[in-house]
Amino acid sequence: MTTEAVSGPILLVEDNTVDLDLALRAFARRDRTSSPIAIEVARDGEEALAFLPRWESGHPTPAVILLDNKLPRVSGLDVLRKLKTHERFRRIPVVMLSSSTEDEDVRTAYDVGVNSYIVKPIDFGKFIEVAEQIEVYWCALNHSQR
Amino acid sequence: MTTEAVSGPILLVEDNTVDLDLALRAFARRDRTSSPIAIEVARDGEEALAFLPRWESGHPTPAVILLDNKLPRVSGLDVLRKLKTHERFRRIPVVMLSSSTEDEDVRTAYDVGVNSYIVKPIDFGKFIEVAEQIEVYWCALNHSQR
Repeated sequence: MTTEAVSGPILLVEDNTVDLDLALRAFARRDRTSSPIAIEVARDGEEALAFLPRWESGHPTPAVILLDNKLPRVSGLDVLRKLKTHERFRRIPVVMLSSSTEDEDVRTAYDVGVNSYIVKPIDFGKFIEVAEQIEVYWCALNHSQR
Repeated sequence: MTTEAVSGPILLVEDNTVDLDLALRAFARRDRTSSPIAIEVARDGEEALAFLPRWESGHPTPAVILLDNKLPRVSGLDVLRKLKTHERFRRIPVVMLSSSTEDEDVRTAYDVGVNSYIVKPIDFGKFIEVAEQIEVYWCALNHSQR
């Protein structure tokens, strides 16, 4: 069985309304110039983990999970830990989107198995750029097992 | 202590002369339009692992390691295993550059801890694009602990 670069969806785990709106607008704007990528949203850690039984039932797994580190109910790190120890879904790439540049936070995320750690841009123009680079890299370039 | 997006070097582990030349030309070409990134080269798995004591002695660690999966002496997977179980250097992002799209190869690389898996483009124009995306993503966008 062979793989191809996977073309989505992206699972965006974000509780902050402003950041979520910014991310969705960034992806929507990016999609005007390329084939649209489906974006799925979880508003907290519990909603993110509720995707696991859906994927087990055949719902398409994401090409990449963009995970906010500060989430209510179940923290970003706990979601990451659950994903990265899951027998079937631990190989789905997870990018931590964080406002923290603290060495300790970066180190912990990598220790729990994050694939990449990106600091959230505050400026909208920069956010668009980052969204584009994330989408190109993880949805068009990277291969993950399906 | 805080981190910044790290600006290189890139460690390129590649034994195939044609692929190495292609990669170096791709990065050199890309660097005409942006600030140059230092590229370090290891020609086999043993040379790659010889970087570990150098990093321990203070030589700058790379922003990303691009690792061919088919290497003489020590295989790409064995290099990956050594890196990803190393107490100090396991958090350095590693991208597997492979000619294989076999599900089994992709799965194994993720199981050993690879951060990303990219299939080598054969076409030079496409190779330039991929080199650019890898450099932008891992050297400008991603944060890793220093």
